[in-house]
Amino acid sequence: MDEAAESIARALSERFGESLSVDPSLPGLEDLARLAARRVCRRYAPREVPADILRLLCACALSAPSKSDLQQADILIVRDKDRRGRIAGLMPQMPWLDEAPVFLLFLANGRRTPFVAALRGKPFPNDHLDLFFNATVDAGIVLATFVRAAEAVGLGCCPISVIRDHIAAVSEFVGLPEKVIPIAGMALGWPAEEGALSPRLPLSVTVHEERFDDSGLAAKVDAYDRRRVATRPYRKQRDVARFGEMDFYGWSEDKARQYAVPQRADFGAFVRKQGFHLD
Amino acid sequence: MDEAAESIARALSERFGESLSVDPSLPGLEDLARLAARRVCRRYAPREVPADILRLLCACALSAPSKSDLQQADILIVRDKDRRGRIAGLMPQMPWLDEAPVFLLFLANGRRTPFVAALRGKPFPNDHLDLFFNATVDAGIVLATFVRAAEAVGLGCCPISVIRDHIAAVSEFVGLPEKVIPIAGMALGWPAEEGALSPRLPLSVTVHEERFDDSGLAAKVDAYDRRRVATRPYRKQRDVARFGEMDFYGWSEDKARQYAVPQRADFGAFVRKQGFHLD
Repeated sequence: MDEAAESIARALSERFGESLSVDPSLPGLEDLARLAARRVCRRYAPREVPADILRLLCACALSAPSKSDLQQADILIVRDKDRRGRIAGLMPQMPWLDEAPVFLLFLANGRRTPFVAALRGKPFPNDHLDLFFNATVDAGIVLATFVRAAEAVGLGCCPISVIRDHIAAVSEFVGLPEKVIPIAGMALGWPAEEGALSPRLPLSVTVHEERFDDSGLAAKVDAYDRRRVATRPYRKQRDVARFGEMDFYGWSEDKARQYAVPQRADFGAFVRKQGFHLD
Repeated sequence: MDEAAESIARALSERFGESLSVDPSLPGLEDLARLAARRVCRRYAPREVPADILRLLCACALSAPSKSDLQQADILIVRDKDRRGRIAGLMPQMPWLDEAPVFLLFLANGRRTPFVAALRGKPFPNDHLDLFFNATVDAGIVLATFVRAAEAVGLGCCPISVIRDHIAAVSEFVGLPEKVIPIAGMALGWPAEEGALSPRLPLSVTVHEERFDDSGLAAKVDAYDRRRVATRPYRKQRDVARFGEMDFYGWSEDKARQYAVPQRADFGAFVRKQGFHLD
């Protein structure tokens, strides 16, 4: 078996807990191998990312598909050390953030389409949920494509959704105007260590054939919990004061605890204040 | 200059109308070359996509980053010819849809996280915009990663956001339960012809350094309109009965016309009816 095909099969088996068949004659297997073995990176070497590489990665990311060619996603680069420190300071639970030489924000830009309408003297009867949704999905697509480009050249990254816990402060800090919001941040740099591979729910949960089917979900989640505990146990249990210490602590317990407290209850209010209508 | 570096520079120059420097010693340039030269595919050869390849691509796509490891994106595969025909029949403006041997739906699944909370006997005080948003962004990330995987092995695809014009019918047809919505569809198959490369807004519009800056946007959009008219003119003008025929018809005029009519005004109502709270 070809080396790339073998490494794909190994990574996917670790990730999904099942064996997948990989045809070694397929083209592009090295690219698939990077996707399959994708690891988050949270430790960075003290080495800059040259401006021309960053620009190249942005261009590749912005070559991704865009809903109706509307191009509603932007990238905001923060490289200035003091400014990065200000953003990292909002998230003290991630002290490693400050090590990354680049911090990015991926922006849903719902501003440009109405601007273009006004520029061309046309009405814009579309200021409702669709505008927010399209810009958000486009930004997610650009983020994912940026991850691919960055990892292809050997950079490591970590998307930071927790910036949304501080969304008003971050948005004001980088000067976001009406109808522009960050969907996520990202730490970027040269990896100082190999990150962990996240085991995922089995494909029988997340891939549906012909019709949606989530039957047997409780048993599948339980099996996944056992696989995670066996292969990559959680080092720390959340909120032990409230929920106690458990002998068996799997993914479902961790996620249930994480979302047992209100998270970003002010997010909708922020999005509306920023000028989006969610009707 | 290395061949891959040269092809990246050529594609990005065509796409963004500017020259980017590409260091030929970077690893992963072949992957970047595919990203840079990304083309939509709307013509497919009459050749099946084997089930094991499809499963491999899904696994690679679902290896993408996921917000807080919550895994809120699913993929639904429609391969049955009659069922594909039923979906394609909703979108007669895309007759080529029927040629694609596979139709996919990328799903925002806001159902599993509350399910897991209930399974573990925990409260879930997070049924607000954040749940909808996280699942939507995760699905966009999985869609983009699927595009990468598919194109790496030589498949072509076209994301189909217009399914949202028929979102209730499509969702019912594939049996989507409460709190699951499609963010987009996708046609997938072996390319029968090379698609077009979409020219994009200049990076000075979509990439921001340190602070958001959209100054000079009207002039930049105008220059972009001229570049598009020179390199890839629109074959047809929209809604000539209402807006007339223009000598100079660029991107901004096309997008302004497209959004001068109400689009998916019922989308918010559908999302709410499907059980999402957008507060």
